[in-house]
Amino acid sequence: MRIALDAMGGDNAPDAVVDGAVQAVRKSGHHVILVGDRDLIYKRLDRYWRVKRLPISVHHASQVVTMDESPASALRRKRDSSMRVALDLVRAGEANAAVSAGNSGAFMAKAMHSLRLLEGVERPAIATLMPSRKGFSIVLDVGGNVGCTPRNLVQFAVMGDVFAHDVLGVKKPKVGLLANGEETSKGTELTRNAHELLRDMRLNYIGYVEGRDAFNGDCDVIVTDGFTGNVLLKTAEGVAKLIYNMLKEEYERSRMGKLGYLLSTGVWASLRKRIDYREVGGAPLLGVNGVAMICHGASDSRAIKSAVIAAARYAERRLELHMMEKLASCVDQEKWASTKERGFWEKSV
Amino acid sequence: MRIALDAMGGDNAPDAVVDGAVQAVRKSGHHVILVGDRDLIYKRLDRYWRVKRLPISVHHASQVVTMDESPASALRRKRDSSMRVALDLVRAGEANAAVSAGNSGAFMAKAMHSLRLLEGVERPAIATLMPSRKGFSIVLDVGGNVGCTPRNLVQFAVMGDVFAHDVLGVKKPKVGLLANGEETSKGTELTRNAHELLRDMRLNYIGYVEGRDAFNGDCDVIVTDGFTGNVLLKTAEGVAKLIYNMLKEEYERSRMGKLGYLLSTGVWASLRKRIDYREVGGAPLLGVNGVAMICHGASDSRAIKSAVIAAARYAERRLELHMMEKLASCVDQEKWASTKERGFWEKSV
Repeated sequence: MRIALDAMGGDNAPDAVVDGAVQAVRKSGHHVILVGDRDLIYKRLDRYWRVKRLPISVHHASQVVTMDESPASALRRKRDSSMRVALDLVRAGEANAAVSAGNSGAFMAKAMHSLRLLEGVERPAIATLMPSRKGFSIVLDVGGNVGCTPRNLVQFAVMGDVFAHDVLGVKKPKVGLLANGEETSKGTELTRNAHELLRDMRLNYIGYVEGRDAFNGDCDVIVTDGFTGNVLLKTAEGVAKLIYNMLKEEYERSRMGKLGYLLSTGVWASLRKRIDYREVGGAPLLGVNGVAMICHGASDSRAIKSAVIAAARYAERRLELHMMEKLASCVDQEKWASTKERGFWEKSV
Repeated sequence: MRIALDAMGGDNAPDAVVDGAVQAVRKSGHHVILVGDRDLIYKRLDRYWRVKRLPISVHHASQVVTMDESPASALRRKRDSSMRVALDLVRAGEANAAVSAGNSGAFMAKAMHSLRLLEGVERPAIATLMPSRKGFSIVLDVGGNVGCTPRNLVQFAVMGDVFAHDVLGVKKPKVGLLANGEETSKGTELTRNAHELLRDMRLNYIGYVEGRDAFNGDCDVIVTDGFTGNVLLKTAEGVAKLIYNMLKEEYERSRMGKLGYLLSTGVWASLRKRIDYREVGGAPLLGVNGVAMICHGASDSRAIKSAVIAAARYAERRLELHMMEKLASCVDQEKWASTKERGFWEKSV
């Protein structure tokens, strides 16, 4: 597999990205194409011994999209930006996947522009793996689309179902719609309309689920709009960090605690492996015609390494093809087409 | 203080509620009025030694609102339900606060009906205390109102501000609006409109905040609609439970871990004290004219005890008066009145 990596994206770019690339290549043997400022990349690469023997190449790009740039302006003005060039390599078939820790809104816009959407998809979704009691669940969308239609949510459900099946190895993924309670009397107009549509789909749809169901193993795919999904994601991050910090404080408070802490280091390491986002690496952008992986802006080299390896795995699975097939097969085409009519949602309530 | 406690509300009622009442009375000395089926309550009370010397009284109510009943039907049909009678005791001045672990939607509807809304409040909000690095933050609404207007959110902000000041002891509470990012380009139409209003208020308003800010101590009051707030609440619960279970699993896996666990019991106990909802007890319903406290349906006696004690504390503070004052003083009345006009929100975007 050949992975195009945006060397200039993220708070710690390019150093952490280059380091992550070297680690990923050493671990997996995949080919990484570092895209960005040639001089800066080589400067960092030169710190590594025998780096020339590794399957790493450098592709120059003269521009960088900054973190605070609007997607529209980035798309219009930065035609030679590192993230754009990385995506173009995927489109041209020179790379199997593109990975970036840069401005995620701009990356998403550029991915839609460069790779195009899959047939049957109206909006792509940023998907995140969440640790759960049974391994992982997938939550989508977590920030790509603030305003969603019921049709969008249905497409997210299908994409999440394919992802859970192909990548997480779940045979019949349980698909749930995120709401403020399990009863159908709960939810917003958006969730109620999406619920109506999802009930008719050839999916293992289990109805409304709550925030906790992303973590307790009762649901494999949690479907939501980007606003709510982002709140879920950031809340999970916040709680995990709080508990970690509190535990550290409590352990440091007493001598007995300190000893307990020392004896627990193995426990901490394996817990971290299970819940640290840096082990998962990145969030795939589902719905575009190719593999595009969005990393946390604060990614360090370990997170980049995990993201490169995960991107290669997704590319091997040919998720896009399966998503298109499933989108075409699991809806009643005639009924589905009718939902496109303007005003359908008002009428259906 | 006299607390009216709905003895029939919750999954473990009436036994856990009666037990919690006895614990609360023994600890705090407040008077608890147990409202519900006289026979059942006395049967449980009789298990306690010298219970007649405790400041506990029983007020009979012949009906019980079930967990799956719709608020409207509960309001119409159950005029002698335990939660209704408990609230009526507050209205009549015979109790200072009402506490229930029963159907929260019905309790909210009955509280609005019986206690009435505070002047200046259009919808009440369920507020929850979240553990944070600096103690607690308050999140509201967490489930009372799925559809909110910008005016509702502004009122929630003022109520949260007063709560944080009076109860949590924060001098100038930082008030944030929950969104999917800190930049003002983020958010939904609802948050953008509420943001415009909040900027003009005499509050320490810090703008958009993210899910994690409820836990890192950067924000004291997190304002949101009931749908999103509920997702935040349930997500936090889910993550905390997941980490707890994972730690337990990891500790049990090795002999060293088991020893580490034994040495860490003190740490666990203090962590639990800081993050367990049963220590906080319940969620106050803010915006009604009196203290009404909603407990988790799964509350055990410890949660009920904490809720009774917390309700007494809120009643002592006279939060309602301060909220009315603040609602009246921190808005520009003329401007505020104009936001009531129909169509304002469409025009203001």
